[in-house]
Formats: sequence, structure tokens, C-alpha cells
Amino acid sequence: MAEPIVQRVALVGAGLIGSSIARAAREYGAAREIAILDASDAVMARVREIGIADEASGDPAKALAGADLVIICTPVGVCETVAQSIAPFLETGAILSDVGSVKSAVVAQVAPHVPEGVHFIPAHPIAGTEFSGPDAGFATLFQNRWCLLTPPEDADAAAVETLGAFWTRIGAKVEAMSADHHDKVLALTSHLPHLIAYNIVGTAEDFGEQTRSEVIKFSASGFRDFTRIAASDPTMWRDIFLNNREAVLEMLGRFNEDLSALQRMIRRGDGQGLFDFFARTRAIRRSIVEQGQDTAAPDFGRRDKSA
Amino acid sequence: MAEPIVQRVALVGAGLIGSSIARAAREYGAAREIAILDASDAVMARVREIGIADEASGDPAKALAGADLVIICTPVGVCETVAQSIAPFLETGAILSDVGSVKSAVVAQVAPHVPEGVHFIPAHPIAGTEFSGPDAGFATLFQNRWCLLTPPEDADAAAVETLGAFWTRIGAKVEAMSADHHDKVLALTSHLPHLIAYNIVGTAEDFGEQTRSEVIKFSASGFRDFTRIAASDPTMWRDIFLNNREAVLEMLGRFNEDLSALQRMIRRGDGQGLFDFFARTRAIRRSIVEQGQDTAAPDFGRRDKSA
Repeated sequence: MAEPIVQRVALVGAGLIGSSIARAAREYGAAREIAILDASDAVMARVREIGIADEASGDPAKALAGADLVIICTPVGVCETVAQSIAPFLETGAILSDVGSVKSAVVAQVAPHVPEGVHFIPAHPIAGTEFSGPDAGFATLFQNRWCLLTPPEDADAAAVETLGAFWTRIGAKVEAMSADHHDKVLALTSHLPHLIAYNIVGTAEDFGEQTRSEVIKFSASGFRDFTRIAASDPTMWRDIFLNNREAVLEMLGRFNEDLSALQRMIRRGDGQGLFDFFARTRAIRRSIVEQGQDTAAPDFGRRDKSA
Repeated sequence: MAEPIVQRVALVGAGLIGSSIARAAREYGAAREIAILDASDAVMARVREIGIADEASGDPAKALAGADLVIICTPVGVCETVAQSIAPFLETGAILSDVGSVKSAVVAQVAPHVPEGVHFIPAHPIAGTEFSGPDAGFATLFQNRWCLLTPPEDADAAAVETLGAFWTRIGAKVEAMSADHHDKVLALTSHLPHLIAYNIVGTAEDFGEQTRSEVIKFSASGFRDFTRIAASDPTMWRDIFLNNREAVLEMLGRFNEDLSALQRMIRRGDGQGLFDFFARTRAIRRSIVEQGQDTAAPDFGRRDKSA
């Protein structure tokens, strides 16, 4: 196997992402040693049971000692507190990173606590499932997924390169952009779709018991895919919306304008307008398939076909 | 193999659904003979090439002769014209059905043209993919999917039973309800989700070229699933929205109310409100998994895991 990228990676938080990085770092030899630190005793106990770290300690002094790469893998909402509490234990020359789905807010909250000589390079692996916790992780989670780095303008080039190499080793495709730009793109590709999915499932929830049970029964065409998205971790998503408020509200404004236009077409019976709108969106789908972000295989009846 | 349910099924329209019924009827022996009639010469030529029918004729007199089950498989928008043109060739005692995603409008448009002695029993198989045309169909499309029958109150019980048996034979689970009720449930489980998916993809489309290409590139978490839904056939969906206008507008009104509430929570930074909302929607997802409408396997990174 190739040389490890870093000597010791310390993961702060052992949820879906942290535990997946631990498994992947071992599987693909990205770090010589893997340390995990989590605020929850139950999580730490489970981490020891499943043996995904070389060191699993609730003591930051122990977990972070000798770590040349430290990745904060907690919900965005607690990253400031976490940064404060681990700052005294970060070693000079170490890289500090994170996995948060928003970047500007994380930078604002974490950067002030980063000691001199520590390289803070925020990152966001666009990968996940709707499950949470240390048992939900798996080594191949990042395979062929994007990991976006948002290094500050004066970032140490070698540190950026090392972090990129780490993510590449565990399977990700790496790209760099500014934190602001990241937040706008993700507001549209991820945050708004999740908000909409949560909302439509919520709308169904408000119906009486009989309708609700029919909605569940006949969920196959469309609704089912929304419920999958809307089953994601509530804490994580609360923090995303609180911390990417402006970009999300801007995208939501555009979404609402477009939806009003569609609503008007339906009310007026404007068949040509509806057809044109629906035909246009097919092109975007084709591009996604062509760029390998998904396959063209029919999907709606997916599992039942092999059943 | 068990006895066929009907002697001859005639399918009017050989798109995804019609061609799938043809393949399934042969595969599972649901009809002794399969006839296909389509208004497009190109489609008829293709149907002959791929050999999915015993008789493929553009002449309704030929295609419908001896058919004890006739299923209109065209977009909802043309079903009145189709009903008019095939009415003279329907045999006494035959069952006439359809596969439209809306039912009240179809009944209003088709019923007046149904000759005395023909049993009109509308139906809606909740199955499909985002692909269209005779090549897109496959025999297992209806396996384990619901097919909802909306027989009129004075429907012939034997005819309803035969139609149900036909759908059961080709793999579907059958349930009966009123056309009005069907349209309300489907507005929420299918029509509204599609409208929203079309809309969010349209919002992305309105951005400039650079943002659009990034949206496509980073579509993995959430957006990708919407584009799949939004790639469905534009004609079919135009017709659905024109023909289920009232139920869709009602659901859209509820959806908008809920979305305004979420928007307000984000603007005000109401973390508790967001968390409660997001936690609540998890329960619906669980019910869908428990009722076998989907599996609990993590899905977001689905194909890449095996790549």
C-alpha cells in the first residue's frame, strides 16, 4: 500500500461522517494512526466496541496528541464550542479541518479560535445517507463523491495539498472554491431540496389518519423519494438552515417566484406553458447523467424489479 | 401456466405503460392474444419490430376485433378523442379501461362515449419510470405496485373482478376507491411532488452557465433525486396538471402555507421550531419503510458504493 498521507488523523465527533472517515482512513491507508474524540460517553463506548480507531479517548489531550490532521465532524451548530475546547491541544503545524455543509458560518465561528501555526482549511465532503451515528458509517462513503475545500486566501499551499491528498486517498474528488461561493451553490443543490422535502412530508403529516395512511401506502411515485431526503438528521439540518440563512432565503425566494408562475399556469389551464417548463427541465437531468453523477437506469420501481 | 384472464387485450397507445402491459400480459399469460393500436406510424413500426404484440395494426377495426379488454394507454389529454374514435369498434360485453394518473377528468371525458353494454372501469397503475416510448417498457414494471380501480357506483361486479384479476396476474396489488378520492390522494403523493421537482430544477435552470454547471456537478445530495423525478414525460405531466387542477391547487395551497412557516423559522433563527419540524417528518419515512414501499438501505451514495 502507498505511504499514509498523514501520521495521525484525529476525528472530533464519531457520527456518520466521522466514523466513515475513520473506516476509510484505515481501509485505504490514509493515516498511520486514527484517533477519535466524541463528547458522548455512549458514542465513545460504541467506537471502542466496533474498533474503528487506534485511540478512542474522551480526553482531548490524549486524542489530539501528535495529530497532524484534526477534522471536526460534529454538527455545524457546535463547531465553535468544539474549536474552543480543542484549540489548546492542537500542535503547531497541524492541519485543522471540518466537514460542515456550510462554510462561511463555520469559518466565522472556528477561525478566531485557531492557534498561530495551525492551518485551518475548511472542507465539505458531499456524501451522506439518511442515517446517523457511529454504526451508520462505512469505508466507501466518499468513493467518487466530491469533497469541496474552501481554503482562505492566505492558506498554506502545502497544507491544502495534504488535505486534498487525504480526501483523494479515501476516494473523493477534490475541488477548491471560496466559502461564499460554496454556500450559494450548496443552498441550491442541497439545502433548498432538503427544505422542500421536509416541507412536503410535513404537509402530508398534517392530514388526518386515514389520508396519512393512504399517502404512505401509495407513496411510490414521487413522494417516497422526498421522504427519504426528509429522514435526514434533524440536528444537522437545523444547523445548516440557521447557518446558511441568507443563501437559503435567497434561493427560496427564487423558488417561490417560479412556483407562483407554475401555479398560475395550472389555474389558467396554460398547457403550452406547462409543457415548455417540463420539457426544459429534462435537459438538466440529461447533463447530470452524462457527467456520471447518476445513471440512466430507470429508478422509480427500482427495488421491486428484482424482488 | 394458469388460464388467461381475458381472451384478447387491446392496448390503445404503446408508450411506457402500454408496451409494459403488452410484455407483462405475454410474460404472465394474462391474455390469450395481445393487440396494439397506436396513432403514430413510427411507434407501430417499432412495435412490430420488437414483436411485443400478436396484432399491431393502425386500424381500430382490426385491433379491437374480439377484444374483451381494451385499455387506453395514451396521455390523459387525448383520452376523449381516443374514446370517440374507438367507440364504434368496442364489442358488447367488453371491458374498457385506462391507465391515466387522474380519474375524475378521465371519467368525464370518456364515459359519454362508451357504448351501451361496454363496461367502463377506470384504473391507474402507480408505476413508471422517467423514460417514455415502446422501448422503455418492461414486463416487471407492475410487480408489487398498486393498481387503483375507480369503478362507478353502478359498475358490473364481474367486470371489476376481471379487470382486477388481470392486474393481479401481471403483478400489481389492486385496490378500489372513488375517482374523487383517488385524485386527492394522488395530488399529494404524486402530482405535487412532481410539480415541486420540476420547479426546483427550473430554478437551477435560470442561473447563468457557470452556476448551472456547478449545480450539475455537485448534484449529489438532494438535487439529483429531484432531477430524476423532473425528467418524466412533459406531455403526460401537462395533462395531469390540467386535469387534476383543483386537487393540485388545494395541495399546493397547503404546501405553500407550510413553506411560509419554515421560511419564517429560518429568517427568525428559530432552531427549536426547525428541529421539531424535521424530527416529525422522520416518522412518516419510518412508516413507509415498515409498509414495504421502500427499503431502509442507505441510498444517497447508492450506485457509487458498488462502483
